[in-house]
Amino acid sequence: MAGSHYTVLVSAFDPHSRPDPGWRAELYTVLFETETSKGRAFDAVLLAAILVSVSAVCLETVDPLYRRFAPVFESLEWMFTGLFAVEYCLRLASVRRPRRYALSFFGVVDLISILPTIVGLFVADAHSLRIIRALRLMRVFRVLKLGKFLRDAQVLRAALVAARYKIVVFMVAVLNLVLMLGALMYLVEGPEHGFSSIPKGIYWAIVTMTTVGYGDIAPQTTLGQVIASGVMLLGYGILAVPTGIVSVELSRVTLNESAEERVGQRACACGMSEDDSGANYCRRCGERLPDLR
Amino acid sequence: MAGSHYTVLVSAFDPHSRPDPGWRAELYTVLFETETSKGRAFDAVLLAAILVSVSAVCLETVDPLYRRFAPVFESLEWMFTGLFAVEYCLRLASVRRPRRYALSFFGVVDLISILPTIVGLFVADAHSLRIIRALRLMRVFRVLKLGKFLRDAQVLRAALVAARYKIVVFMVAVLNLVLMLGALMYLVEGPEHGFSSIPKGIYWAIVTMTTVGYGDIAPQTTLGQVIASGVMLLGYGILAVPTGIVSVELSRVTLNESAEERVGQRACACGMSEDDSGANYCRRCGERLPDLR
Amino acid sequence: MAGSHYTVLVSAFDPHSRPDPGWRAELYTVLFETETSKGRAFDAVLLAAILVSVSAVCLETVDPLYRRFAPVFESLEWMFTGLFAVEYCLRLASVRRPRRYALSFFGVVDLISILPTIVGLFVADAHSLRIIRALRLMRVFRVLKLGKFLRDAQVLRAALVAARYKIVVFMVAVLNLVLMLGALMYLVEGPEHGFSSIPKGIYWAIVTMTTVGYGDIAPQTTLGQVIASGVMLLGYGILAVPTGIVSVELSRVTLNESAEERVGQRACACGMSEDDSGANYCRRCGERLPDLR
Amino acid sequence: MAGSHYTVLVSAFDPHSRPDPGWRAELYTVLFETETSKGRAFDAVLLAAILVSVSAVCLETVDPLYRRFAPVFESLEWMFTGLFAVEYCLRLASVRRPRRYALSFFGVVDLISILPTIVGLFVADAHSLRIIRALRLMRVFRVLKLGKFLRDAQVLRAALVAARYKIVVFMVAVLNLVLMLGALMYLVEGPEHGFSSIPKGIYWAIVTMTTVGYGDIAPQTTLGQVIASGVMLLGYGILAVPTGIVSVELSRVTLNESAEERVGQRACACGMSEDDSGANYCRRCGERLPDLR
Repeated sequence: MAGSHYTVLVSAFDPHSRPDPGWRAELYTVLFETETSKGRAFDAVLLAAILVSVSAVCLETVDPLYRRFAPVFESLEWMFTGLFAVEYCLRLASVRRPRRYALSFFGVVDLISILPTIVGLFVADAHSLRIIRALRLMRVFRVLKLGKFLRDAQVLRAALVAARYKIVVFMVAVLNLVLMLGALMYLVEGPEHGFSSIPKGIYWAIVTMTTVGYGDIAPQTTLGQVIASGVMLLGYGILAVPTGIVSVELSRVTLNESAEERVGQRACACGMSEDDSGANYCRRCGERLPDLR
Repeated sequence: MAGSHYTVLVSAFDPHSRPDPGWRAELYTVLFETETSKGRAFDAVLLAAILVSVSAVCLETVDPLYRRFAPVFESLEWMFTGLFAVEYCLRLASVRRPRRYALSFFGVVDLISILPTIVGLFVADAHSLRIIRALRLMRVFRVLKLGKFLRDAQVLRAALVAARYKIVVFMVAVLNLVLMLGALMYLVEGPEHGFSSIPKGIYWAIVTMTTVGYGDIAPQTTLGQVIASGVMLLGYGILAVPTGIVSVELSRVTLNESAEERVGQRACACGMSEDDSGANYCRRCGERLPDLR
Repeated sequence: MAGSHYTVLVSAFDPHSRPDPGWRAELYTVLFETETSKGRAFDAVLLAAILVSVSAVCLETVDPLYRRFAPVFESLEWMFTGLFAVEYCLRLASVRRPRRYALSFFGVVDLISILPTIVGLFVADAHSLRIIRALRLMRVFRVLKLGKFLRDAQVLRAALVAARYKIVVFMVAVLNLVLMLGALMYLVEGPEHGFSSIPKGIYWAIVTMTTVGYGDIAPQTTLGQVIASGVMLLGYGILAVPTGIVSVELSRVTLNESAEERVGQRACACGMSEDDSGANYCRRCGERLPDLR
Repeated sequence: MAGSHYTVLVSAFDPHSRPDPGWRAELYTVLFETETSKGRAFDAVLLAAILVSVSAVCLETVDPLYRRFAPVFESLEWMFTGLFAVEYCLRLASVRRPRRYALSFFGVVDLISILPTIVGLFVADAHSLRIIRALRLMRVFRVLKLGKFLRDAQVLRAALVAARYKIVVFMVAVLNLVLMLGALMYLVEGPEHGFSSIPKGIYWAIVTMTTVGYGDIAPQTTLGQVIASGVMLLGYGILAVPTGIVSVELSRVTLNESAEERVGQRACACGMSEDDSGANYCRRCGERLPDLR
């Protein structure tokens, strides 16, 4: 079911993108095919390079480190940008339909992980945008055995999709509550206790209901503390609702999947299960059913 | 099941409130009927107006913004109050039984979202009450496809209703615990460490057991920290109980619903399921069963 | 199943404690029988008195209130202590076996809710112990319809009993972890950052893993913050375990109960279900089965 | 299923390690066999000694206590180190294959709980490493009835094993999110509000998303607070995912186990159940099935 979504995310293009035999095909094997030994070795090296590069971007912002190792960070930056740029060009060169790769999820990520360094020559703050390279770490799913992960990512996704209406209902209710509480606390506590405006009150309500509780803004009047106590107990109860929703949907999807395995059943994203092997569309929502495995 | 409750909340009156053909019927179509294209367009505009209006109320309390844009906020306030007042009158005029609308959930909300501005002419603080307009945002359920949401809101509500006794038992136990802990910490820590009274101690106990943890009051004696550690581990375990309750009830309601779909079964709000299609009342609690779909 | 436990907690003695007809029986009806109109009226008045008395104890510790209303609090204290003492004596007088009542749960609670005031004549701090009266609020279950609550309290209890071994395994693991982390952070951060001893480090580890996070002690070195990040992510995952355990046990107990209702099945506290109506003991754990309803 | 893992953890070696009759066998009975009365008595004394020793290590770091009781702590340290050293030697002497014990989990733990005191003669900070003795507390499982605990530890472990891929998918997503958020907040808030580097921002993101919320670093700009609000609501929803995963797997493992008890079924670690009593390998993953009980 919806396997195509994951193919996009993980391998970034269809299997027909392999070019005809020749140096391009050779290059293609190394750069794109995870199942071959060469491809796997390349992916391992690439992942290590991305990790080092992301770490360098993070550590560069630590002042004492930067002051001591500024030239190291600078050369690392240019080296990795260069390497990633070369890799990007080779990928474009080796794939049969370069434009398709360039517009795929990983194509775009590969491009924008090179750009910040170049933009940084002109704009000072752009350097930190290199953190976007972290997205490239998602290639890790390709190196590890794919099947298991895909299957479980699908289960998680199907559960969240099935729960989407319940989550929207829940979120609208929470937002309403938070707006009201923010305004109420602004009136009760007032600017002298840190609740300087309604948006600040809303911020406090969110910090409290999610049980984060920084303590940068905390009620100080008696009435404010009584209301806050009520809000916390409420938040406590409310926290149970999304957990319950996700658990139930996850459980339903998981059970459907187990059932499918036994008989030739298939499940639709809407949660309906179908055991007529000739059916093509869901009886309930009309969407196309997944193919029989 | 219990569909009537939701009709009240969402469409605010029964379908028989449509007046006889004429300008009133035309107006009625625009103002109340979400399924027609005109009605949908009106609802979209209305929702946008409510959103802008609520945002204005929030941002007005931000001091630097108010000082710069005071006239803008004032005119926005009067404009929206005027618009909503006109809308309210038109609604009263177009519906067959105006009194019924005026006393319905949305009728009351529509009225009290106009009042604060007018009251604010005489009382200074009343302005902030305009935040109550946020309640009007619940009209959003009307614009989106209703069916799905209603169905899921019903499942959530049925789960909470079925869990009500367990939640009361749980809440009484938690309140008792919090009272005892508040008094204990007042005795152990005393006013010099911020626990200036038993209510303050209760406030601390709630802040701690819900894992919010502002840190505005924190134990400082060794004994106090030992007790606090116990309270936290307890709160950790206790947090699991409401989540478990909601999950189980949600799961039971969801499973009942799936079962109903397959055979001609119906479920009562109390969790009992009935497969005799001739039955009208629940065998267990005696409440009226929902009609067969 | 295990109904007797709850009778103890709620009605505090067996039905045979009713004395022979006469003034004592009359008094007994008022004081102990919740099903009669007189008994219910008395219970409502009593609960109100307990609530007011507990509130007075709490508010007395609020300094500004005490300074203004000291005489009021003092007279309230003596009035309620007097009333509760009279009530206690009447209960002793009206019940057939006074000693049995005196040693029951509510008998002890009734006594120790009078004592602190008297002890307070000699010892200054004893006053706050009056908060123990809050335990008397559990009589609320007697006023409300009992059946439903008992049933649900039983389900909650059975779930927690069934989960006891899993919870012990979990708790030993968490305690070990917390000890190690406390010592580690003491070594890494040291006294100059608030981690003044290993017990302090353990306190920090508990505050962090339960996601309370006061912020009174927080890591300040880089290594400390890296470790703390790991602890938080771990705590995040660990939080899921008790919730999962309680959910599953609650779900099993609930399902067993629904199944019992349909056929003449009974469930043991260990989770085993029995459908042979002639069985008296659990096949798995050998404990006595509940009677058929 | 996988019982061997637990034997390793709990009894530390196979039953064939009992030496031939003689003084060594006698010693073996006392030191290793929990089912005999002598063995149980020894284990109780040992656990008490470990508890006292761990407490002493903790309390020694509390400055006022150390200043008053320094000699007591020092003698306790040497006494316990001596005792544990003697115990370790006796264990080595009494077991049939000493090397096997020395390399087992508890053998290593027993050794490293003696070392720090000796190393502490030369290196100052090594003292605190004695906390590692806390690991010896896991012997508690041997003293208590083993069966129940092992069974439930197995259920917990099987649930976590079955959920491992889902948890990895979840963790990679969370880490990516945290990296992005840390960099974003570094750009938005900047060093003047405590976000002095990207790693600091990542630390903040973890503190916030796990709802710990120390408040040592908190957003102070409006934009920062808006982003933080989003992060908290997100974290709120995300918290539901691992809980849901663990609940579902725990529920599946528990149900499989109940089913196994009724008919002669067995479950594989992958979640597949097998009712053909002649099967030796899992139909789905090919791993060896547990033996029939």
